[in-house]
Amino acid sequence: MAVGQNQFPKMNSVPGIKLGTACAGIKQTEKDDLLVIEMAQGSACAGVFTQNAFCAAPVIVARENLSNQPRWLLVNSGNANAGTGELGLQDAQATCLNLASVVNGSKEQILPFSTGVIGETLPVAKINNALPVAVKNLVEDNWDKAAKAIMTTDTFAKGATRIIEIGGKTITLSGISKGAGMIQPNMATMLAFIASDAKIESQLLQACLAEAVEKSFNRITVDGDTSTNDACILMASGLSEVDEIKEDSTGYSDFIEALNSVCQSLAEAIIRDGEGATKLIKIIVEQARDESEAVIVAKTVAHSPLVKTAFFASDPNWGRILAAVGRAGVENMELDKIDIFLGDVCIVQGGGRAESYTEGAGQQVMDQEEITVTIALGRGEAHEQVLTCDFSYDYVRINAEYRT
Amino acid sequence: MAVGQNQFPKMNSVPGIKLGTACAGIKQTEKDDLLVIEMAQGSACAGVFTQNAFCAAPVIVARENLSNQPRWLLVNSGNANAGTGELGLQDAQATCLNLASVVNGSKEQILPFSTGVIGETLPVAKINNALPVAVKNLVEDNWDKAAKAIMTTDTFAKGATRIIEIGGKTITLSGISKGAGMIQPNMATMLAFIASDAKIESQLLQACLAEAVEKSFNRITVDGDTSTNDACILMASGLSEVDEIKEDSTGYSDFIEALNSVCQSLAEAIIRDGEGATKLIKIIVEQARDESEAVIVAKTVAHSPLVKTAFFASDPNWGRILAAVGRAGVENMELDKIDIFLGDVCIVQGGGRAESYTEGAGQQVMDQEEITVTIALGRGEAHEQVLTCDFSYDYVRINAEYRT
Repeated sequence: MAVGQNQFPKMNSVPGIKLGTACAGIKQTEKDDLLVIEMAQGSACAGVFTQNAFCAAPVIVARENLSNQPRWLLVNSGNANAGTGELGLQDAQATCLNLASVVNGSKEQILPFSTGVIGETLPVAKINNALPVAVKNLVEDNWDKAAKAIMTTDTFAKGATRIIEIGGKTITLSGISKGAGMIQPNMATMLAFIASDAKIESQLLQACLAEAVEKSFNRITVDGDTSTNDACILMASGLSEVDEIKEDSTGYSDFIEALNSVCQSLAEAIIRDGEGATKLIKIIVEQARDESEAVIVAKTVAHSPLVKTAFFASDPNWGRILAAVGRAGVENMELDKIDIFLGDVCIVQGGGRAESYTEGAGQQVMDQEEITVTIALGRGEAHEQVLTCDFSYDYVRINAEYRT
Repeated sequence: MAVGQNQFPKMNSVPGIKLGTACAGIKQTEKDDLLVIEMAQGSACAGVFTQNAFCAAPVIVARENLSNQPRWLLVNSGNANAGTGELGLQDAQATCLNLASVVNGSKEQILPFSTGVIGETLPVAKINNALPVAVKNLVEDNWDKAAKAIMTTDTFAKGATRIIEIGGKTITLSGISKGAGMIQPNMATMLAFIASDAKIESQLLQACLAEAVEKSFNRITVDGDTSTNDACILMASGLSEVDEIKEDSTGYSDFIEALNSVCQSLAEAIIRDGEGATKLIKIIVEQARDESEAVIVAKTVAHSPLVKTAFFASDPNWGRILAAVGRAGVENMELDKIDIFLGDVCIVQGGGRAESYTEGAGQQVMDQEEITVTIALGRGEAHEQVLTCDFSYDYVRINAEYRT
C-alpha cells in the first residue's frame, strides 16, 4: 500500500551513464538484484553517506573510493553487508575486485552499495557469478530496470527525471531511489543514484549534492531510525554541450533547481511508500528564529507516534501537535504565540483552540490523502518543512474507537 | 493486555494522609473519576512536573502552590484541562476555590491535577458538584479506590507500598500511579502520588524525590512523547515516631532506598501497562564513559521502532540494536568494542555476531515475556538502565512474516 498513484516516469537517458542489471539470486527470487552503473571516462562523482557511527562495510569502501575518480557503482539488494565486521569489508572489496576484472578497471574506482538484511554474510560468489551479465547489459536506456533491481520492500520503483535548457542546449538529470519501509525494516536503507551529463567539477558537484540532500532526503522521516547503509550518489558525465557549470555561470541556478527537484521527488516517493502509510503529511514550521529551530520542531512533530496515529485515525487532534511542539526543546517558546493550520483551516490560535474552528472543517482536511500542517511559532522569519507519513497500525483502530 | 500478573498490592495506610474519591461523571461512566487527598497539618510536600514547554493549566497552578505548604491534592481523570488557555487556568482555580470552601481551607494550599482528553474545557460544575462527596469519603485506608479513580486507559490499578523499620519504629511509604498507554494516547499522562509519614523538611524531601524520579519515571519510555500534564508528588505527614530524616541521620539511606523502590515499582507498572505491550524490556548500558552517555544510548535503543518491533516478533535482531546504538550521537564510539547480550546470551562480540551465538539460544530469550538487553560499550565504568515495552502493532505481523 502506498499513498497516491506512483507510476514510474518515462526516464531520460543520460549521455555517458550506462546501467546494467542481473539476477544474482541473493533474494532467492528470479528478480534482478544486482545493478552496475558505468560512468564515462572523466565523469565527476559526489556522495553523501549515513551519519550512523556504525556504517556498513560497503559504505566504508565507497566513502574511501569516492576520491579516486570512480567509474563504476556496484549495487546489490537482498543483503546489507552490515554488522559483518572485518569479513564484510573483505567481501565488499572482493566484489569490487571482481567487477574491476570484468570491466578491465581498477577496484579503487568502484563504489559498492548493499541493501537488505543486516548481519548476514554477503553472498560474494553469487554476486561475482552474475556480474558479467550485469556488465553485458550496460546501456544508457536502462533506468527502469535499475530502479527495480535496487528495490527491497518498496512496493513501486522510484524515479525522477528533468531536462533543462541553457542557451539552446540541454542538460539531463535522472535519478532513482529506494526507501526505508517502516513495515519491513530489516531492509531499512535509503539509496539514491542520480546522474547528469553536466560538465562540473567534483568539488562543486559535492557542494550541490550536500545542499540538495539537506533539503530533501534529510527532510523526510518514516520512523526516525537511521540506517547503517544510507547513501546518495550524484554523477556528472560532462558530455552535455552546455558550458561547464560554475557558481557564477548562467546555468548554475537552473542546475541547482533541477537537482533539488529530482532529489525532492525521489525523497517524497520514499515517504509515499512507507509501508502501511495511508497519508502523506507535510509539516511546515514558519515564524521560527532560525532554520535549525524550524527543523527541530518539524521533526519532533513528524516523529511523534501520537501525532502520526491521530493522522491515521483522521482525528484533527491539535492537542497532540501542540504537545509535540512543546517538547521540541526550543527555549523560551511562548504558547500564546502559536498558531496551527490543518490545510487552510486554522485549528490553534494563540496556543488554544481557534474560535473559528469547527470539527467539521478539521475533519474535511483530515479525510484527505495528502495533508499539510503549518505551525507558526511567532518568533521570527525562518521556515522549513519535513515530510512524513501516518502510523496506520492496528492500535490506531482502538485509539480511534476510543474517540467515538 | 498487560505484561505479567499485576494485582493491586495490599496497601499500608499512611498516618496523616487521607484519600477520598467520587464520581463526577466526567468520563460519562459511573466509575469514580475524582480524588481528593488530604495531608495532616504540618506535612511536607515535594513535586516534579512535566518538562514540556506547554504545560497544562493544572500543572501551572500546582507548581505555583507547591511552596504554600499545600494540604490538599485535587485530581480528576477524563479531562486533561490542557491546551485550554486562559479559561483552563480559571477553571483549575475555580475547582481549587470550591474545594477550599468545602474543606474550610485556602485555595493556595491546593494542588490540582487533571488527566484525560486534551483540548476540551474542564467540566467545572460536575467536579464542584462531586467534591463534597469526595471530601466526605476522606479516610486513610483508601489507596485502592484512589488508584482506580485516577486511571484513564490503564488496564489495572497501580500501587506500591513499603514499611521500613528504624530503631524499632516504622516509616510507611505508599504510592499510586497511572500511565501513558501508547494505544490510547489521548489520555497520555503519567501521574504518581506517593505519601509517607516520615518527618522531613520540604527541601530535603524535594531533593529525594528529584533523585528518585530521575532513576525511575525518567528511565521509562512507551512512545517517547512527553505529556503536558505529567507530575509526581511526594507527601510526608511527619506523624511517624522515627526521628526527623536528615542527610546525616541513620534512617536516611533506608528512606531513600524505600522511596526509590516505590518509584521504580510504580514506573515499571506503567510500562507493563503500555497498551498493546506483550513484553517488558530492560535496556542496560554499561561500560559507558559517564551516566549521561549510558542514558542516551539506552533511550535511543528503547525508542527505536525497529528494535521494538523486533522484540514483538521475538526476533533476536541484533543488527537493529547495533544500528540504534550507532545513531545515539555518542562521539568516537568504536564498533569493535561493543558487546551485546540478550539475557545471558552473548549475541554481539566486538561489533559483530558472536561466534558462540546460535539463533536457538537467542530465540529462547526472545520468547520470554521479560527480556534484559545488556549493551557494553567498552569505554568506561558508568552504567544505566531504561525500561520499555515492545511495539505490537499489526505491521509487525508483516515484518515477522518477512523473516520466515
